[in-house]
Amino acid sequence: MAKRSIPDIVIGRLPVYLRALGFLVAEGRQITSSQELGDRLGISSAQIRKDLSHFGEFGKQGTGYDIQYLHDQLRQILKVDRMWEAALVGAGNLGKAIADYGGFAGKGFNIVAIFDNDPAKIGAVMGVNQVKVQSVSELAATIHARNLIVGVIATPATDAQAIARTMVDSGVRAILNYAPITITVPTGVRVQYIDPVVGLQRMTYYLP
Amino acid sequence: MAKRSIPDIVIGRLPVYLRALGFLVAEGRQITSSQELGDRLGISSAQIRKDLSHFGEFGKQGTGYDIQYLHDQLRQILKVDRMWEAALVGAGNLGKAIADYGGFAGKGFNIVAIFDNDPAKIGAVMGVNQVKVQSVSELAATIHARNLIVGVIATPATDAQAIARTMVDSGVRAILNYAPITITVPTGVRVQYIDPVVGLQRMTYYLP
Repeated sequence: MAKRSIPDIVIGRLPVYLRALGFLVAEGRQITSSQELGDRLGISSAQIRKDLSHFGEFGKQGTGYDIQYLHDQLRQILKVDRMWEAALVGAGNLGKAIADYGGFAGKGFNIVAIFDNDPAKIGAVMGVNQVKVQSVSELAATIHARNLIVGVIATPATDAQAIARTMVDSGVRAILNYAPITITVPTGVRVQYIDPVVGLQRMTYYLP
Repeated sequence: MAKRSIPDIVIGRLPVYLRALGFLVAEGRQITSSQELGDRLGISSAQIRKDLSHFGEFGKQGTGYDIQYLHDQLRQILKVDRMWEAALVGAGNLGKAIADYGGFAGKGFNIVAIFDNDPAKIGAVMGVNQVKVQSVSELAATIHARNLIVGVIATPATDAQAIARTMVDSGVRAILNYAPITITVPTGVRVQYIDPVVGLQRMTYYLP
């Protein structure tokens, strides 16, 4: 598949479609339409049809989409029909919340290693996988040894860039960054930001 | 301004532009272009120009955008040139992390009230504003009394819908939901989800 031809902004919408389809599956629904998905997501039905058309034919005019089939296809396309093991750095309140997060289950991700630089936190056992917190000094060796290519940063802003560099130097190729700072990575490495401000600011526009 | 005419998807990109502009301001930069912004954000320069054109003329062909001016204009458009007081429900690890989050400062938001249903947490003082955690039984009265219209949900999934209903019945019109569940609200009330899975899944597509 000629991946270069599909805009990143389209890829960025697929997980949103997948989540909506997951909710529909959970509701016991079987068929949906680009119109219904669009109404739920605030995206035009034409946009949804156009986005999905990059990957093949998933529905027929007039009959809609088979929810489970489209859900499974999107999981394959996004490569989350497998389990990605991830390293989490930061075992403070935020790191604990991420390690405890129930929403990763069945979505393709598993926090298998946790790191902190605070001696009081190292050795603690936390999260849904009951992982023992390691020293950040072991981050590089652990990423290498376990072939981890997904990293999550939940450190203070001041530590985030250095952690990102260590992750990338050790083999990580996708970083989810909760620290409120932009981080620089080499070409070919992906970064996504979790930023509550973006979510809040897109709502205040509509407030009186 | 005829707000109905501007698609929500456009509004949704403005906070992303604002964040990028904030980084440029912090870097001491003065002029940028739709091309540079697009390269940083993975959005086409044409899309950025089209989005901004809904709100007026912010740059001139060939000279680019004045970063500080565009930054200030977007803050006004998104109504975050003021301070929105917000109620946070959930004082567990995630709630604590949100209350402690340094990234809200200067972005238009302030957590002024925190609620939990755990007697062990009620009365604790937490967050950048040193707010005393109240009982969830006081949520409705506090929202009314303080005229809060922004709410943040950081509860377990099982509690999120009931909390959302109480918030909305008391006057909240914008909810940031961290719980891994979809919540239903009346027309006119906005909900945004903070979902790390969406961020992770849009990266795995590119992984080998």
